[in-house]
Amino acid sequence: MAAENCPVRFGIIGCSRLAKKVTRAILLSPATTLHAISSASPEEAKQFAVANELPETVRICSSHEEVVDDPDVDAVFVPVPVGQHSRWGVAVAEKKKHLLMEKPGAVDLGELDKVLEACERNGVQFMDATMWLHHPRTGKMKELISDPKLVGNIGLIHTTSTAFIPRQFFETAVPAGKPAMETMGAVGELGWYGIGAVLWAKDFHLPSSVTALPDITKSSTGVILSCSAQLHYEQDNTVGIIHCSFLSHLTMELEIVGVNGSLYLGDFILPYKEQSAEFNFTWMAKFVERDLGWNVKPEKVEVVNEVSQEVLMVEEFARLVQGIKAGSPPDVKWAEICRKTQLVLDSVMKSIEIGCTCVTL
Amino acid sequence: MAAENCPVRFGIIGCSRLAKKVTRAILLSPATTLHAISSASPEEAKQFAVANELPETVRICSSHEEVVDDPDVDAVFVPVPVGQHSRWGVAVAEKKKHLLMEKPGAVDLGELDKVLEACERNGVQFMDATMWLHHPRTGKMKELISDPKLVGNIGLIHTTSTAFIPRQFFETAVPAGKPAMETMGAVGELGWYGIGAVLWAKDFHLPSSVTALPDITKSSTGVILSCSAQLHYEQDNTVGIIHCSFLSHLTMELEIVGVNGSLYLGDFILPYKEQSAEFNFTWMAKFVERDLGWNVKPEKVEVVNEVSQEVLMVEEFARLVQGIKAGSPPDVKWAEICRKTQLVLDSVMKSIEIGCTCVTL
Repeated sequence: MAAENCPVRFGIIGCSRLAKKVTRAILLSPATTLHAISSASPEEAKQFAVANELPETVRICSSHEEVVDDPDVDAVFVPVPVGQHSRWGVAVAEKKKHLLMEKPGAVDLGELDKVLEACERNGVQFMDATMWLHHPRTGKMKELISDPKLVGNIGLIHTTSTAFIPRQFFETAVPAGKPAMETMGAVGELGWYGIGAVLWAKDFHLPSSVTALPDITKSSTGVILSCSAQLHYEQDNTVGIIHCSFLSHLTMELEIVGVNGSLYLGDFILPYKEQSAEFNFTWMAKFVERDLGWNVKPEKVEVVNEVSQEVLMVEEFARLVQGIKAGSPPDVKWAEICRKTQLVLDSVMKSIEIGCTCVTL
Repeated sequence: MAAENCPVRFGIIGCSRLAKKVTRAILLSPATTLHAISSASPEEAKQFAVANELPETVRICSSHEEVVDDPDVDAVFVPVPVGQHSRWGVAVAEKKKHLLMEKPGAVDLGELDKVLEACERNGVQFMDATMWLHHPRTGKMKELISDPKLVGNIGLIHTTSTAFIPRQFFETAVPAGKPAMETMGAVGELGWYGIGAVLWAKDFHLPSSVTALPDITKSSTGVILSCSAQLHYEQDNTVGIIHCSFLSHLTMELEIVGVNGSLYLGDFILPYKEQSAEFNFTWMAKFVERDLGWNVKPEKVEVVNEVSQEVLMVEEFARLVQGIKAGSPPDVKWAEICRKTQLVLDSVMKSIEIGCTCVTL
């Protein structure tokens, strides 16, 4: 079998809750295999192996270095705390292994750029693990947005990404090794998705300015628990508004309002169900005669996907890795998307720092 | 028949498009009759009578004064341009007629207060014609919001109210007698609903601050075509975000996100259909094991209403008028709601004036 036809052999460093889904995706996809996992706690690694029914062939390592150094590992998924992203991202790239990085990119753009430069210098593929971008529903929505007759110039992109975490969690000692939780909090964990959705809807063009709104809630330990921000595209008259919070129950709404049509869905980051997903599309809505009702109701557009978005993500990653094995250069698209998302994330943090005033990009 | 059992006899001044729905509601309700209408253009009044199949008993007047002076008119609906609201509102009240005023209240709070003071001094009922507050769906949603187990502390209230009006309309001469179109534009016409929805969700408590977001689009003639604003309830960690625009097709979304549950509907101002309306309610959402999907999907809550929201509005108004005839004082609830909505509307305009900085209330 030619090297480019062998499954991509993954290592995973960090046996966190986040690692579970990607582990399952790697095991499900014929394009990938799981070769090794590691945890700083050998006990945690063993429990993870049992809980996730890992095949016996998977190496259980007691240090991340063992995985990164393993010559039989082609690519590494890095779900370590965000404060350690750049250290481990660079380490993976320097060993000429392809890098699938948990989101957000890093604690800031400077740290992320160290990782992206290391990937570029070593000719390895970079991708962050923002899964919803790989769902076919996302592609279907993009089709509608791209047709000016269907949506047309976008006036508003609104997103919510909230997930309840008891406040006490943040009021007590900050978990060791999680410096990002201290600074970005909900903005890094959840706002990442909202920012990404605005950029995605705008074909990854950067906004002209970013302004955090003066409704920031922080824990007594300084973690951002709730935040809203505005991304303004002055030239197009588009406003992106994101809201992210640990203080509300789970919501993941995305609404895109254009001159001719609009989209709405309540589960944009992770679909309600694994194998089919929906969104509402409303087109050329107006009132009927005498304003007694509407000429249209939202149409439900269903997208069936045999394979879940995380499997599609690892398969896209594997396809690019196989391409590199066959002589193609790494695809920089995913690095650019991650970099722009991080740049806007940094701008939200900057705006908060300077009293919620406008940061021009 | 005792006076309080006779239908309330309405006059309508101004045969605008806005007058059509209320005219129909007055004709449909057994609690009200239409006695007189007026237009500055007698031709327009006649056409309106034909188009709306008015009974021959309705007096067609060629001046608003004739309606206001008519001793057989108990109450007047005032759908004149907003710049004339205070003048005609005061005139109606001074003639001891009850006042149903088209929204927004007035060009500013000072002008609105002239109307409210005249109503109070003359012992007449005041209500503005914000119809959705009278829909039973609104009441059903309030029930859910009021139960802390169901929604709980609200983190986000987000509304869109957009309706497409060709830009040329605003780029050419500003219609005579519409000064408010020059100043408030979409904020007055559409933002009124979004502001009202935030206040409604918060039991008509005022926010601690109001900030317009720096995405204001104006026509070359200075009309606000698109605007977003934030209403912040600092003590409760609630943020209200409204977006209103003439640049997008029709949308009327309302989303309320709480610690335990959330509501969403796409037609909050005017339901898609006249006799039944829905909203989505999601409760205690979280991911299932391994984050493969959600534990719940939004539940569709349907509210059937035999009578449309505008009929319910005129019937509530008539009920209060009958109460006054029977000796009760006017109900000031509706004046207070209108006044608070106007106060926040003024604050949005003020924030725009001072470079989108924060206005403390």
